[in-house]
Amino acid sequence: MEFTLGQLAALLGGKVEGDENQKVNRLDKIQEGSPGGISFLSNAKYEPHLYDTKATAVIVSEDFKASKSFTTTLIRVKDAYSGFTTLLEAYAQFSKMALVGVEEPSFMHESSSFGENGFRGAFSYIGRSCQIGVQVKIHSQVYIGDRVKIGNNTVIHPGVRICSDTVIGANCEIHPGAVIGADGFGFAPQVDGTYKAIPQIGNVILEDEVSIGANTTVDRATMGSTLIKKGAKIDNQVQIAHNVIVGENTVIAAQAGISGSTEIGKNCVIAGKAGIVGHIKIADNTTVGANTGVSKSVREPGQTLFGYMGFDLKNFLKSYSIFKNLDALEKRIKELEKKG
Amino acid sequence: MEFTLGQLAALLGGKVEGDENQKVNRLDKIQEGSPGGISFLSNAKYEPHLYDTKATAVIVSEDFKASKSFTTTLIRVKDAYSGFTTLLEAYAQFSKMALVGVEEPSFMHESSSFGENGFRGAFSYIGRSCQIGVQVKIHSQVYIGDRVKIGNNTVIHPGVRICSDTVIGANCEIHPGAVIGADGFGFAPQVDGTYKAIPQIGNVILEDEVSIGANTTVDRATMGSTLIKKGAKIDNQVQIAHNVIVGENTVIAAQAGISGSTEIGKNCVIAGKAGIVGHIKIADNTTVGANTGVSKSVREPGQTLFGYMGFDLKNFLKSYSIFKNLDALEKRIKELEKKG
Amino acid sequence: MEFTLGQLAALLGGKVEGDENQKVNRLDKIQEGSPGGISFLSNAKYEPHLYDTKATAVIVSEDFKASKSFTTTLIRVKDAYSGFTTLLEAYAQFSKMALVGVEEPSFMHESSSFGENGFRGAFSYIGRSCQIGVQVKIHSQVYIGDRVKIGNNTVIHPGVRICSDTVIGANCEIHPGAVIGADGFGFAPQVDGTYKAIPQIGNVILEDEVSIGANTTVDRATMGSTLIKKGAKIDNQVQIAHNVIVGENTVIAAQAGISGSTEIGKNCVIAGKAGIVGHIKIADNTTVGANTGVSKSVREPGQTLFGYMGFDLKNFLKSYSIFKNLDALEKRIKELEKKG
Repeated sequence: MEFTLGQLAALLGGKVEGDENQKVNRLDKIQEGSPGGISFLSNAKYEPHLYDTKATAVIVSEDFKASKSFTTTLIRVKDAYSGFTTLLEAYAQFSKMALVGVEEPSFMHESSSFGENGFRGAFSYIGRSCQIGVQVKIHSQVYIGDRVKIGNNTVIHPGVRICSDTVIGANCEIHPGAVIGADGFGFAPQVDGTYKAIPQIGNVILEDEVSIGANTTVDRATMGSTLIKKGAKIDNQVQIAHNVIVGENTVIAAQAGISGSTEIGKNCVIAGKAGIVGHIKIADNTTVGANTGVSKSVREPGQTLFGYMGFDLKNFLKSYSIFKNLDALEKRIKELEKKG
Repeated sequence: MEFTLGQLAALLGGKVEGDENQKVNRLDKIQEGSPGGISFLSNAKYEPHLYDTKATAVIVSEDFKASKSFTTTLIRVKDAYSGFTTLLEAYAQFSKMALVGVEEPSFMHESSSFGENGFRGAFSYIGRSCQIGVQVKIHSQVYIGDRVKIGNNTVIHPGVRICSDTVIGANCEIHPGAVIGADGFGFAPQVDGTYKAIPQIGNVILEDEVSIGANTTVDRATMGSTLIKKGAKIDNQVQIAHNVIVGENTVIAAQAGISGSTEIGKNCVIAGKAGIVGHIKIADNTTVGANTGVSKSVREPGQTLFGYMGFDLKNFLKSYSIFKNLDALEKRIKELEKKG
Repeated sequence: MEFTLGQLAALLGGKVEGDENQKVNRLDKIQEGSPGGISFLSNAKYEPHLYDTKATAVIVSEDFKASKSFTTTLIRVKDAYSGFTTLLEAYAQFSKMALVGVEEPSFMHESSSFGENGFRGAFSYIGRSCQIGVQVKIHSQVYIGDRVKIGNNTVIHPGVRICSDTVIGANCEIHPGAVIGADGFGFAPQVDGTYKAIPQIGNVILEDEVSIGANTTVDRATMGSTLIKKGAKIDNQVQIAHNVIVGENTVIAAQAGISGSTEIGKNCVIAGKAGIVGHIKIADNTTVGANTGVSKSVREPGQTLFGYMGFDLKNFLKSYSIFKNLDALEKRIKELEKKG
């Protein structure tokens, strides 16, 4: 991916001071710039690097005034920082969407359909009766079971497994090694102490704009659907059990686990390693702290829970600070007992 | 998979009231039934749906009496609910076993043997000198290392890795992304502060009827075997370290971890996120609560442990309820001290 | 892999007492020895087995004197135990390095280079502009993205995903299902409550002699590098977030998680399920206990932390032992209050 400075200036609504035909193919930190790279200068602290950077171009704000001579080419934009961010996002988007076509060998059953401008990597597998939208990127070694639907512009990274009957919306991103739609963990105890698997015939639905992290697992419902709503963002190694519902724009950090049939509201933040038991409801805008256990429904929106069996954060911290000196507390009681 | 109502009635020991040659290929909820689907009616609350369902057939109990007219076809069985459950299990079993043959490209070394009525999906890999039983389903992108043995009717879902020398029994099910038989985590500290890997030359044995969840890891033994006994059911993202033994019919929920050389008895229940240290023994019928740490052997069978360093559940809950108000407790002591 | 006793004696600097041309292909426990196997006798307790073992050969120490007759062949070395360990390591190393060549179908883009004596398994994928050193073993179903560099003698086990721009040193070992270089979890909250992904354009660097466990995830940096330094050993299902630095020879056990931008010193030991928050520093030689949470920087080297919000181990244990009887403590206060 190579662009002329003119093309980038057009993208950013800015102006090149110098040769518009120079080409760049990389984003550099200004202090580490080298030919072919483009950097930005926003924080005055980094200005000295402008005068010796070897980057081909540097994005600066409209009102920037150089105090020394330099060899790089400037692109002036309204605000250098947001200009660079725009470039960064365009670059990321472009990288994601650049792959088009089919690498062989790959496998797609003839009963499945695949939209335009998509990509299917080598050793990817698409089962029977799937409907894949336009511009969908199925990377190498991805598995897609039977009757799966995937919306437009969704990216499925290498080695993801999407089991049968899963429905995935548009603009989703599923990171490597995630497993969507494996059987829920349901076993009926038998009189002889053994267990019999309860058939899991539901599915998983991911709505639009959902992100799923590497090696995360989202189990299919026993019946009905496990549902991740629009805009939810889920980190690596998270476990979402069968029939869970995760609300819109809820964020779940790494290694958290949600047990079966629990409903989490919208705009919640669940921190890393948190654990939430099954069959409860968590109100909208709830924050659950790192490594916090939640064993009861949270009815009132907007609370912050913390602790081994999570309760109000402020009270937890007070209790824990005394806990750290319980020994001293006991000594004070002994002292009182002696006197008494 | 399409069946006539006559075939299903025969399976359920029931009777069709109408055309036995109608075909169904799907299980429907009665309120969402449509042509080609079969539903059941057990709870009287759902009876009104019988009169307008579009499902091709509905399973009812022998003694059911309709109060209105309807267009669907009835199958009468002894008990509608258990009839439907039977159908569900037959369906799940049938789905699991329906795949037969080899999808290409796939890889199996010529020194390995593969039983009848099996399935090998595209991009699956089977190494040297493996012995695979009859009706074994090796899904797409599964890796099976050298000298692995797999018993009859076992299902290995997409993207599972079975490392060399693993032995798997009959009727097992291994879910996507699980890794069985990777090297145990053993390193010998050297005088210069570095570590040297201790060769892990043991293996993993899964006995019959074992279930392993998605992205779970079971490490091979240093020497000898890591052993998961008959009927044990293990959920997603569980870590089983080298030389662990898990007893018969023990259930381990998601994200739990068992450290090296620990032995867990039979019919135990280990809840989600529990952690058990290495080199201890857990007696039969022990229950370990969610997120509970176990750092000492449990000698007496039938106990329930709970808490950060797990102890008796009832006492933990009592202590934790006081912990939540430690601040109040300290104030009472201050009050006493003032008086004293 | 078959060796004559003469070859093994040469490797161990020892001497065969008997036919040097006999062949062995397996390491046996002396009590379970059978023809074709080689065992060792170091602990006098096992001497009786020497007299009836069916192993082809047994390694003994120079000064060993048999008290009865036997049929196996002895190899005398300076010290039997370390001789056997040498053999074990040679065997493990040999097994690891034995695979050479390319199994088809496999995929490597023409712009990538691959060193001598390497192995590429069936269904492995190597993207654009990669540089792979000599004797590198890329097992079946491994994914390697664009512009990845891998040093000599490194082993990448089946189903590992190495995302674009990752740099891996020499003599590393990456176990099945690990994901190196997936996007870090970075989202900018928008005014309407939705989140926008922050492009993650950094990479991951693993220095020499690093080991990564099965299904572990190491995320790429937002900018710059997530860095695992020389000799660090990381177990299964560990989560390393973006921009983390792990110091030399630091060991991290299973299911631990390190949040973004945290720096861990060298020669630390992080036990299983430990959780470390983001943006802090952990001094060299720190030990973090199992399931311990660390929420603040640790400045002084050599400490041991323990507990839900980790502090000094000794104090934690004291507090926890009182916590287990908080009920009794409260009763003592009640008693005092009555008297008061």
